[in-house]
Amino acid sequence: MLGNFMYCNPTKLYFGENSLDYLKGELENYGKKVMLIYGGGSIKKTGLYDKVIAILKGCGKTVVEDAGVMPNPTSVKLEEGAKIARENGVDFILAVGGGSVIDYAKAVSVSAYCDDDPWEKYFIRFEDVSCRIIPVGCVLTMVGTGSEMNGGSVITNHEQKLKIGHVFGENVFPKFAILNPVLTYTLPRKQMVAGFFDIMSHILEQYFSGTDDNTSDYIMEGLLKSLIHSAKIAVRNPEDYEARSNIMWVATWALNTLVAKGKTTDWMVHMIGQAIGAYTDATHGMTLSAVSLAYYRHILPYGLDKFVRYAVNVWGVNPEGKEKQAIAEEGLAEMGKFMREIGVAMRSSEVGVTEDLISGIARATLIMDGGYKVLDISEIEDILRASL
Amino acid sequence: MLGNFMYCNPTKLYFGENSLDYLKGELENYGKKVMLIYGGGSIKKTGLYDKVIAILKGCGKTVVEDAGVMPNPTSVKLEEGAKIARENGVDFILAVGGGSVIDYAKAVSVSAYCDDDPWEKYFIRFEDVSCRIIPVGCVLTMVGTGSEMNGGSVITNHEQKLKIGHVFGENVFPKFAILNPVLTYTLPRKQMVAGFFDIMSHILEQYFSGTDDNTSDYIMEGLLKSLIHSAKIAVRNPEDYEARSNIMWVATWALNTLVAKGKTTDWMVHMIGQAIGAYTDATHGMTLSAVSLAYYRHILPYGLDKFVRYAVNVWGVNPEGKEKQAIAEEGLAEMGKFMREIGVAMRSSEVGVTEDLISGIARATLIMDGGYKVLDISEIEDILRASL
Repeated sequence: MLGNFMYCNPTKLYFGENSLDYLKGELENYGKKVMLIYGGGSIKKTGLYDKVIAILKGCGKTVVEDAGVMPNPTSVKLEEGAKIARENGVDFILAVGGGSVIDYAKAVSVSAYCDDDPWEKYFIRFEDVSCRIIPVGCVLTMVGTGSEMNGGSVITNHEQKLKIGHVFGENVFPKFAILNPVLTYTLPRKQMVAGFFDIMSHILEQYFSGTDDNTSDYIMEGLLKSLIHSAKIAVRNPEDYEARSNIMWVATWALNTLVAKGKTTDWMVHMIGQAIGAYTDATHGMTLSAVSLAYYRHILPYGLDKFVRYAVNVWGVNPEGKEKQAIAEEGLAEMGKFMREIGVAMRSSEVGVTEDLISGIARATLIMDGGYKVLDISEIEDILRASL
Repeated sequence: MLGNFMYCNPTKLYFGENSLDYLKGELENYGKKVMLIYGGGSIKKTGLYDKVIAILKGCGKTVVEDAGVMPNPTSVKLEEGAKIARENGVDFILAVGGGSVIDYAKAVSVSAYCDDDPWEKYFIRFEDVSCRIIPVGCVLTMVGTGSEMNGGSVITNHEQKLKIGHVFGENVFPKFAILNPVLTYTLPRKQMVAGFFDIMSHILEQYFSGTDDNTSDYIMEGLLKSLIHSAKIAVRNPEDYEARSNIMWVATWALNTLVAKGKTTDWMVHMIGQAIGAYTDATHGMTLSAVSLAYYRHILPYGLDKFVRYAVNVWGVNPEGKEKQAIAEEGLAEMGKFMREIGVAMRSSEVGVTEDLISGIARATLIMDGGYKVLDISEIEDILRASL
């Protein structure tokens, strides 16, 4: 049954090969001082940096740069960024990059004027924003996180060995996002396929809950089929515009709040994957792929009918004359085949997990309810061990 | 291939059995004078009118009423409504009803301060809004049109025998919509099933175009499957909350601009259905169902592969060992079976079309491109004749 909910997603998207042309018009809605946030400098190699700077200068903006956002942005970096934003009195934040850069930009936007420790307030105590928010816009260069159209922000605290996400309200969603599939072509293969699996995981985290008939589940099956179809093409030819554009569009809808509406979700693959990330700093999507099959095999008995539906509707498993268990397992086997085909990490040992880390990772995992089985720490250890 | 596009849908939705509780909070964002628009008075019988009035009074609003909006709102009524809004200087328009009431409310919102004839400006010349717009909010009592989350407005001019829709920009979208599935229970069966088919038609109008791989098509297949599943339950038990709530949610997403993104569309079933409506004033959804099968059989040769995909992915037709033509026809036959099961008009004679009206209806049909075949007038006559 569809539970009660509120839906509102105010982010404006410009999608397509010419979408950067719309940046100027959007920037004109904001003040003169713009904080430009980006990552390790790949946007300088691709020429995107120069284009964006030219647009900013063309609008008469004063640019304050904050570069070097790492793949798993840290609480230490966040403090620095918040200070830069505050001390320069920036009117607007423009994030150019992938999910990490946009997540970080949103965290900066709510931390600049926060009179508390932002890490403690937002990521440990999960409190709402009560200070001035600096508006954020983004130019996306890597797909996966859906950060371009949601309020999510994941920050890592290495000292505390914690990687935690907070979902902020609509007032923190990017005001606009520029989505040009061509900008994702230059991404290294590893990051590209990790992003593909991140998208798949976002959908599955929201799909595997409930036993009822829910429109969101039908939409998610459509998104998964589109993703699988296009990902197979993109790994053979990363410059296939049709495949990359559809993947970009799936990624946005996989995590912009729509498919979660009326459902409960526990996000346990992300909780375990993020705990791994806090320990090993591995690529986010790879930490998810490394534990997914072990996790799904573990919860399969608690959500058998949904795993059967998944096998039939998403992976085209023929159910005739088969037991439910066999159908469900065949679905997961097909999923495994797909994962190997696109080339993501299949085992947690590939993302730096070792036997001696298991206990710490399990304890660093946030345990959520809303899925088929509320895990305990020993089950998380079992899943990690099975995935080694 | 996904074409270039802009996406922005600012409407805030409150969904669920308790959603009317949020009306007060939303109304507080707007001025004192509220124009309350509704239809034939069924909201008085159900008690909804009293509840809404109590909320309005509780917020200290002055209420100006405009009742009697007919199922196909007319250009004459629009002139009256625009005059009421203007002369009373209303700050906000609250529409309580189904698609006709909300369509009309949006038309009033852009007509009150229009210094031209609104019918001529918006519905004949398709011009943009250049005057002050009165914000609109709505409480939905009938699902189908998707009017609660889009800029669409269909107005009928009986004198000119024209029924024409205009899609306004985001500034005309309802600011908020209250969606309570329970409010739809009291709808007469005929209106209920006409709404179900209207939803199906909205999806199919956007599905039957293109030969490429498009995420929207996968989403639409999911929406169709959810609709078909729930509609079969709802006709047996109109008070099945799960079925009615999922149908309500499908209806919103079937026509809130998402699934059209990156695609071309021609909306020819609606164009023909609206021309019938202009002549016979028949229920909108029934005019669509009456001509759909004849129309799809006519265009099938031009989009054969998509009709095959439709048969297999939506209707579960087993394609093994069959010619494409046979698979496609089996899909349409399954669609026909479903239509008979829910009880919609199967022939245009059921919605008042007679042989002598065919020529006039065909001439009143707007011919659009973007689908598999650009029709000419004689083809529309053939389709109408085949559907008699």
